Amino acid sequence: MTEKIVLTGIKPTGDLHIGNYVGAIRPAISLIQEPGILPRYFIADYHALTSMQNREELHDRIYQIAAAWLAFGLDPEKVLFYRQSDVPEIFELSWILSCLTSKGLLNRAHAYKAKVDDNLANDRDPDNGVNMGLYNYPVLMAADILMFNTHLVPVGKDQIQHVEIARDIAEHFNKTYGDTFTLPEALVEETTAVIPGLDGRKMSKSYGNVIPLFTDEKKLRKAIFRIKTDSKTPEEPKDPKDSTLFDIYRAFATEAEIADLAKRYEEGIGYGEIKQILFDQVNEKLKEPRKIYTELINDKAQLDTLLKKGGEQAREYAHRFMLEIRNKIGRY
Amino acid sequence: MTEKIVLTGIKPTGDLHIGNYVGAIRPAISLIQEPGILPRYFIADYHALTSMQNREELHDRIYQIAAAWLAFGLDPEKVLFYRQSDVPEIFELSWILSCLTSKGLLNRAHAYKAKVDDNLANDRDPDNGVNMGLYNYPVLMAADILMFNTHLVPVGKDQIQHVEIARDIAEHFNKTYGDTFTLPEALVEETTAVIPGLDGRKMSKSYGNVIPLFTDEKKLRKAIFRIKTDSKTPEEPKDPKDSTLFDIYRAFATEAEIADLAKRYEEGIGYGEIKQILFDQVNEKLKEPRKIYTELINDKAQLDTLLKKGGEQAREYAHRFMLEIRNKIGRY
Repeated sequence: MTEKIVLTGIKPTGDLHIGNYVGAIRPAISLIQEPGILPRYFIADYHALTSMQNREELHDRIYQIAAAWLAFGLDPEKVLFYRQSDVPEIFELSWILSCLTSKGLLNRAHAYKAKVDDNLANDRDPDNGVNMGLYNYPVLMAADILMFNTHLVPVGKDQIQHVEIARDIAEHFNKTYGDTFTLPEALVEETTAVIPGLDGRKMSKSYGNVIPLFTDEKKLRKAIFRIKTDSKTPEEPKDPKDSTLFDIYRAFATEAEIADLAKRYEEGIGYGEIKQILFDQVNEKLKEPRKIYTELINDKAQLDTLLKKGGEQAREYAHRFMLEIRNKIGRY
Repeated sequence: MTEKIVLTGIKPTGDLHIGNYVGAIRPAISLIQEPGILPRYFIADYHALTSMQNREELHDRIYQIAAAWLAFGLDPEKVLFYRQSDVPEIFELSWILSCLTSKGLLNRAHAYKAKVDDNLANDRDPDNGVNMGLYNYPVLMAADILMFNTHLVPVGKDQIQHVEIARDIAEHFNKTYGDTFTLPEALVEETTAVIPGLDGRKMSKSYGNVIPLFTDEKKLRKAIFRIKTDSKTPEEPKDPKDSTLFDIYRAFATEAEIADLAKRYEEGIGYGEIKQILFDQVNEKLKEPRKIYTELINDKAQLDTLLKKGGEQAREYAHRFMLEIRNKIGRY
C-alpha cells in the first residue's frame, strides 16, 4: 500500500482551551496513528501575520502551540513537525503559483468575501481593513500543500474551498508546465467535536466562556465549578441531553462512563457532585499533558532543537522539489 | 560621503532592439560610472512569470538579457548583478510585507487599474485576464527594493508609483515593528530617450518596426536602409527636425557629428548617403558589444558562473538582513 501524505496546518493560537483540544488537537493526533498515513504537521506562523503583528505575541504563541501538541502526544519521530517559516521555498513557490492563479478565483474565496460583505453591510469600502496577506492566503495555503506533494488535507467543511483552490492551481500548473504536483484532496471531518463553554454557548475565546487547557488543578476545578446550571434540587431527575456539564463530560469519558453518568442524571444527582465527577475526569486526562507542557514551555532550547530538526527535514524535501519546479518553469 | 544604494530591475525582454539600448541599457550603464553610487542590478526573472509562462522562452531570455548588459559594459566587479530568483529571501519578505499592505493600495496601482479599465470598456469582468502575480507585483517590487536597503530607484515617470508603494509599505513596517527598512526614493529619469522605428513611430516590438540590437552587419545595414523616407531628391534641402534617420543618428553621434549632419541636411544630401552614414555610426557603436554578446551567449557556463557569483553575494546580504527582519516580527 502506498502511504498517503497528510498535511495539517496549525495556527499558532494563544490561550488554548479544552475546546481546542477536543475539536482540533485530539483528532489530529489520533489521525497520526492510522495506518497508511505519512503525516506532515506544521505551525503556520507566517500565516498568523495576516491578523497578528506583534513581535512578542507571535514568538510566544509559536512555542506555546508547539509545546501543546507535543504534550498531547505528537511524536516528532512519526510526524514531520515544522514551522512554515523554516521553509522559505514555500514563499518562493507561493509567488510562482500566484502567476498561475486568476484573481477572480481569489475574489470568490469565502474568508475574503465574508469580509467584503461585512464592509458593504456597514457602508464601508469593500476592501476596508483587508490586507494583502488575508487576500493572498489561499495561494500561500496552496504552496503549503503542493510543496510536499500532499494527498490529503484534513479540513472542516468551511475549509474545503481552500483545498479546491490548491487543486485548481496545481491542475493549471501541470497543464502549463507538465505533470509536477500531486492533486490534493480534502479529508472532510464530518463532525467536528464542539463543546459548550461556561455559559452553555460554544466554547470560544470571543465569548469569554472558556476552560483553559493548561492551567493548574485548582484553577481548572474553579472554572468547572463556575459552569452555569439550572436551579433543580439534587433529588430531581435531570435530562443529560440538556446539560452543559454532560456535554463536556461526553467529550472526555468512555462510552461506559457516559452511560453511567446518564443513569445517575435520571436517578437524580446534585450539580456539585456532577461537577466534581467532571473535574476528576478532565483533570485525569490533562494531568500528564499539563506536566509535559510545563516542562517544555520552560525549556525553549529543547523546543528549538526539535522544531529546527523538523524544519531542516522539511526544507531538505522542499529544496529538492524546488529544483525540479524551477527546472519546469525555465530556471534551469 | 555615504554611498547611495541604487537598485535597477531588468526585465528579461526577448529580441532586444536599439531602442532598448538607447532608452534603458545605456543610461543605466552610464549611471554606474557616477560617483557615490553603489549599484545593484538584477534580472527580474520571476517577475517575468506574470506575463510569460513558457519554459524555454524564460530560460533563453535570462541569458540573452544578461549577455546584453554585460556586452554593453556592465562590470560585475562594480555592480552587484544577480537574478531575482537566486535570492529566495525576496519572496519570503514579499509575504511578510503583503501582511502589512492594505488591499486598497494595490487596487489603485496603475498597471492593474489600466487592465480593469480596459476590461470595463470592453464589457468584461473587471478582473478578466488578471493573474495574482500581476496584481501582487507592486509588493514583490517593494520586497526587491527593501531587501537591499535601497536609497534610489531609477524609474521612468510611469513607475514612480511603484517606488511610492514600496516607501509606504516600508513606513508601515517601521512604524509597526521599529526602524528596519531604508525609505527608498524614486530617481526620476526626466527624459527617457526614445527613438523612432522603421516607420517613424516609436520603435517598439509591438509595432514591428524595430532595428535589432544584436544582428550581423549585413542585416543591420539592410534594416537601416529600409527606414521610411519621403520622396525629396538628393539636391533638395531637408529639415533634420523632421527626419527619422536624423532622430536615430542623434541618439548615437557626438554633438559635433550631429551638427555636421544637420548642416549637410540643409545643404542637400541624398537619403542613401544619410543611411550609409547612419549605418556606419550605429555599427561602429554596436560592433564590439556584438562580438562580446556572441561570445557570451555561446558560453552559457561563463554566464552561469558570473550570475551565480552575483546571486550568492546578493543572497548573503539578504540572508543576514532577513535574520534581522525575522527577529523584528517575532521569529527569533
